[in-house]
Amino acid sequence: MGDKINIGVDLGGTTIKMAIIDDTGKMLDKWAIATNTIDNGSHIAADISASVLKKIEQINLNHADIRGIGMGAPGFIDMDTGFVYQAVNIGWENYPLKEALEQAIGLPVIIENDANMAALGEMWLGAGQGAKNLICVTLGTGVGGGIIVDGDIIHGVSGMAGEIGHITVVPKDGDPCNCGKKGCLETVSSATGIRRMALDALDYNDSESTLREIFDRKGDITAEDVFNCSAQKDPLSEAVTEKAAYYLGYALGAISMVINPEMIVIGGGVSHAGDTLLKPLTKYFQLYSLPRIYQACTIDIAKLGNDAGVIGGAWLAKTKIKNG
Amino acid sequence: MGDKINIGVDLGGTTIKMAIIDDTGKMLDKWAIATNTIDNGSHIAADISASVLKKIEQINLNHADIRGIGMGAPGFIDMDTGFVYQAVNIGWENYPLKEALEQAIGLPVIIENDANMAALGEMWLGAGQGAKNLICVTLGTGVGGGIIVDGDIIHGVSGMAGEIGHITVVPKDGDPCNCGKKGCLETVSSATGIRRMALDALDYNDSESTLREIFDRKGDITAEDVFNCSAQKDPLSEAVTEKAAYYLGYALGAISMVINPEMIVIGGGVSHAGDTLLKPLTKYFQLYSLPRIYQACTIDIAKLGNDAGVIGGAWLAKTKIKNG
Repeated sequence: MGDKINIGVDLGGTTIKMAIIDDTGKMLDKWAIATNTIDNGSHIAADISASVLKKIEQINLNHADIRGIGMGAPGFIDMDTGFVYQAVNIGWENYPLKEALEQAIGLPVIIENDANMAALGEMWLGAGQGAKNLICVTLGTGVGGGIIVDGDIIHGVSGMAGEIGHITVVPKDGDPCNCGKKGCLETVSSATGIRRMALDALDYNDSESTLREIFDRKGDITAEDVFNCSAQKDPLSEAVTEKAAYYLGYALGAISMVINPEMIVIGGGVSHAGDTLLKPLTKYFQLYSLPRIYQACTIDIAKLGNDAGVIGGAWLAKTKIKNG
Repeated sequence: MGDKINIGVDLGGTTIKMAIIDDTGKMLDKWAIATNTIDNGSHIAADISASVLKKIEQINLNHADIRGIGMGAPGFIDMDTGFVYQAVNIGWENYPLKEALEQAIGLPVIIENDANMAALGEMWLGAGQGAKNLICVTLGTGVGGGIIVDGDIIHGVSGMAGEIGHITVVPKDGDPCNCGKKGCLETVSSATGIRRMALDALDYNDSESTLREIFDRKGDITAEDVFNCSAQKDPLSEAVTEKAAYYLGYALGAISMVINPEMIVIGGGVSHAGDTLLKPLTKYFQLYSLPRIYQACTIDIAKLGNDAGVIGGAWLAKTKIKNG
């Protein structure tokens, strides 16, 4: 025999994304099924197994061609054992995910945190290609992070490494965060945080603004509205963008002093802002790191979108599972 | 045959510390020679070689018993090649240290940054014993750091990982730092920073204080004076200690969110303050990290003092040089 194929699985609260990827990174197929959360998620392992095996048959591969599965899951996970302490959206509590899936499909399985898996995907085939030391930041509803050192995700002693959304960036009078603290990066640089800061700015400020026109028309605004108006030089939106970029640049400056990365990859919905975000971000990142650090580091937008997770899963299978 | 012995060398601006340590961590001997910086440090490799070989003979060992040398040096170093870009105190500029020492002594040599080497020493035989993920902070004239992930120092893409003294902790109106930035951790939590904050406090404040008495008597104060007076409940000194601990706790909180360490080891002169520093530090560290992170992390004072470097050097030789 020779090369085998790798399966990436990315478990979300509503869908399970899956892909078949060979060792060169070529995606042979990708598809998704609904996440069945009834009975506390106890059907999920069997659903994945059945779906993968059916797909393999459809594209004329055999069970023996599969090296294994790299799977990302949300929640608190012991990556060594593939044991999920808690994944609220799925219904799992103290669930032996790795064991359950291995039994269902009869193949080796590796479990990883979903934010970390997206980071590995970007490293393998995305914006971080070729880099071995990188920071991946996902700016969505929250702020997630994946830290890669010498080509591998770092997990820390209790699997919490890379929880950069909860670095305190507003030490005084910061807004409350879901984690119970105040002034976390997530409160100011996530889509949620940017919307909140913009609503505050509209409230405290009577100036004319294209953002206000959107608010008056729709009754609400999104982070995307803020970036769109900012790109069109709306001063109020530019001020909010600047603030979000300031805090993100500050945090990434501090993290870079610890990690000295070759690359920072920004993903998630907020990253669609592109240069509107990257330009002020780069300015503040340089202000809060040292020349020998920022000169060695490129900041770029993630390239793989929703595929990052399954690609990272396939990378895990390819590199961490011994060829059977 | 069987076990070999390891040589640790710790190069400073005035002395070169050396030690012979076996694989179990037993120190067979330690000694120091003066650092000869004339002719741009070009005699140093020969000095080390001669001193090591003489010592080996004295204690009835042979050249063949030595596995190799792990050496720590100050300045900017390429750890892979052992090339020193610049070490101002020594006089080296673009100096091939590893090559020069290997030629002089005829044994394999590994070069490491001196702060990182001390961190490895504390991990092997000091306060961090048994931990594989740890942060070592050296609070002296400056603030140095060594970050250990999965048992190895991380260097980053340009050898700057762990430069935590230059994380910005006072973003607005911070004092100038030697690095050219303002408000770095080093400006507030080093011995120098603590002395400066105390002098400022004495200046802005007329209150009676045992610290003021020392200042009036000696014409100056040290960080040690501040901690001594703080331990005796001098309010002005307590306020300065609290401030130094606040910023250090803030920075260590942020770093822990990235690394999720099992242990934080505090070394350097300032660490002699012991609980006077550790108590407020722990409070602020917890304030700026998450429960799942601080509950998994112990903060302790370094145990090896000036021996940390040579012990770390011996550990490098033991673990990174293949048995000859």
